[in-house]
Amino acid sequence: MISFAGGLPAPELFDVEGWRAAFDRALSRPGVLQYAPTEGDPALRALIADRETRRGLPTRADDLLITTGSQQALTLVATTLLGPGAVVAVEEPTYLAALQCFRMSGARVVPVPGDDQGILPEALEDVIDRHQPTLLYLVPTFANPTGRTLPATRRRALARLAETHSLWLVEDDPYGELRYRGTPVPPLAASGDRVISLGSLSKICAPGLRLGWLRAPATLLPSLAVTKQAADLHTSTVDQAAAATYLATTDLDAHIARLRTEYRTRRDAMIAALPAATPAGTTWMDPDGGMFIWLRLPGETDTSATLRTALREQVAFVPGAPFYATTPDPSTLRLSFTTNPPARITTGMHRLAAALSSSVPNQ
Amino acid sequence: MISFAGGLPAPELFDVEGWRAAFDRALSRPGVLQYAPTEGDPALRALIADRETRRGLPTRADDLLITTGSQQALTLVATTLLGPGAVVAVEEPTYLAALQCFRMSGARVVPVPGDDQGILPEALEDVIDRHQPTLLYLVPTFANPTGRTLPATRRRALARLAETHSLWLVEDDPYGELRYRGTPVPPLAASGDRVISLGSLSKICAPGLRLGWLRAPATLLPSLAVTKQAADLHTSTVDQAAAATYLATTDLDAHIARLRTEYRTRRDAMIAALPAATPAGTTWMDPDGGMFIWLRLPGETDTSATLRTALREQVAFVPGAPFYATTPDPSTLRLSFTTNPPARITTGMHRLAAALSSSVPNQ
Repeated sequence: MISFAGGLPAPELFDVEGWRAAFDRALSRPGVLQYAPTEGDPALRALIADRETRRGLPTRADDLLITTGSQQALTLVATTLLGPGAVVAVEEPTYLAALQCFRMSGARVVPVPGDDQGILPEALEDVIDRHQPTLLYLVPTFANPTGRTLPATRRRALARLAETHSLWLVEDDPYGELRYRGTPVPPLAASGDRVISLGSLSKICAPGLRLGWLRAPATLLPSLAVTKQAADLHTSTVDQAAAATYLATTDLDAHIARLRTEYRTRRDAMIAALPAATPAGTTWMDPDGGMFIWLRLPGETDTSATLRTALREQVAFVPGAPFYATTPDPSTLRLSFTTNPPARITTGMHRLAAALSSSVPNQ
Repeated sequence: MISFAGGLPAPELFDVEGWRAAFDRALSRPGVLQYAPTEGDPALRALIADRETRRGLPTRADDLLITTGSQQALTLVATTLLGPGAVVAVEEPTYLAALQCFRMSGARVVPVPGDDQGILPEALEDVIDRHQPTLLYLVPTFANPTGRTLPATRRRALARLAETHSLWLVEDDPYGELRYRGTPVPPLAASGDRVISLGSLSKICAPGLRLGWLRAPATLLPSLAVTKQAADLHTSTVDQAAAATYLATTDLDAHIARLRTEYRTRRDAMIAALPAATPAGTTWMDPDGGMFIWLRLPGETDTSATLRTALREQVAFVPGAPFYATTPDPSTLRLSFTTNPPARITTGMHRLAAALSSSVPNQ
């Protein structure tokens, strides 16, 4: 089976030896096995704050809460800010685990219309007027599942709307450093004070560490820490100490540069295979970064049926419907290009072509 | 400062070298840095199931969900089973982070009267009739903060009541293996099917790992896993793999035997110092295991005021009031005897004696 389904980093690119050395050094201190502060390892918070600052987002260690992956950060935000009857605004389509998390908190989810560059600020203004959302959740850079990136002018417009209407913006940014073309766009959080930013080591180091962070205004961070304490007291002291050691002793930028080079090749291999693999009339977005290519098949195709054919051909993807907050477009699907090396991508795309040619109605 | 406040294991008794070796072996496989199943590492689940079975609680790997410490297990139970208006029954006094967790979920907390051996089954029956609780939370073995242990007959009676009234029993058991006298009492979960058991490596290995587990009936485990997925996707793959390696290659029973020997000495040192350190009329429980000694000072003492005097004497404890769900007894306090070696306990008890003699009203 060749899977383009999960948003998994390439395991052969993990810096296993670097992490092994970091854990070994971290475990030379007995304190690493003890209880620790809820807010996180002070050294790790300082190193992440430095890194965020260098990326264009001035950040102090005290602005950060270390979380058990950025999925936990999302749940902490939902638990702290939302309750039954609250409204959450989202891009559509958007990260499906975020939708599940908001629904579990009892909130009503309202989509904000957008285009190939993401949410339209005037559409957000309309949603604010009609629904008074507590927060807007978005992945502004290399979005999951669409791969699209919100331009700087729109980011500033969203930040202004958030200030005017006392709306929280939740900027989920796991992919921002995985850029394969073009120049970085300033983080949404650099445009205003109503932004909660979620970051993660999952895509740039390794997801098995479950290390993420949350950068929030000082008015909000103490309540988020109380929620975190009830959630798991604190994130693994061992993993945090290993990450602090790793960040202090490794050239992470060089590692990310290697990931970029390799993932760029993989994206290119998948994009190159798409015209021959898909029926006429299929459209897709060619992303500047991240992990995903988002496709729309022509006509009345239901990609959940296509998936059954694809699995018989030994290839997997994710049908697009679950990424929609309201009315799904069943002709959409998501392909992940990071997990498999280029040659395997090419083989997988041949299999996908076979599945699509036998399951998509002729135009 | 000598602290008898936090429920911290003794850091000098951590098996640092054993864990260092376990992390090193676990990190020889790249998969250890990848995403992993929400339910937990299959090898770790199997090893914990074996251990629970040998402790008298027949358990299969599939009965378990690995959690980010047992604090997470508690929050998963609250999120899955409770909502605004739900009622939770508790021992009184009880673990204060559990009280906070239930309050955050919007539940109403109702105490069940008990005596020096814990909850009285007839009192639970009365609470069920009057309040229809969804669950009863208790630490039946070496309770936090009282150190008391619920006898086997009462456990069976509670399990019968749970069956009859469709009540869930949440058995929080972080201390059960730390017994210094007497013979083990069968786990509450061995008496019936309405029990969710929470276990943890925090007190028998190391809390910094944040590794706990939840054993629940098959009817409940899938919903708890959905809540876990929203909470943090899964617990650190690295920590779980290290724990599986550690449990497979180390004689944990021998390590726990060493903890028992050392902690027994510490409990005895603190108990021996109490008559001279406390005013006439002070009462305490001498626990068979666990980490805590619970005291009641005579008369109208307010231990939060006593604490201020104690801190000036360079000794700390936890005032008892926050452990109460309803009307607190301000003359109570909790001492932890595991963190400090015996000589330091003796010094700390001299300081406590000085604080008590200057702050407790004469009888």
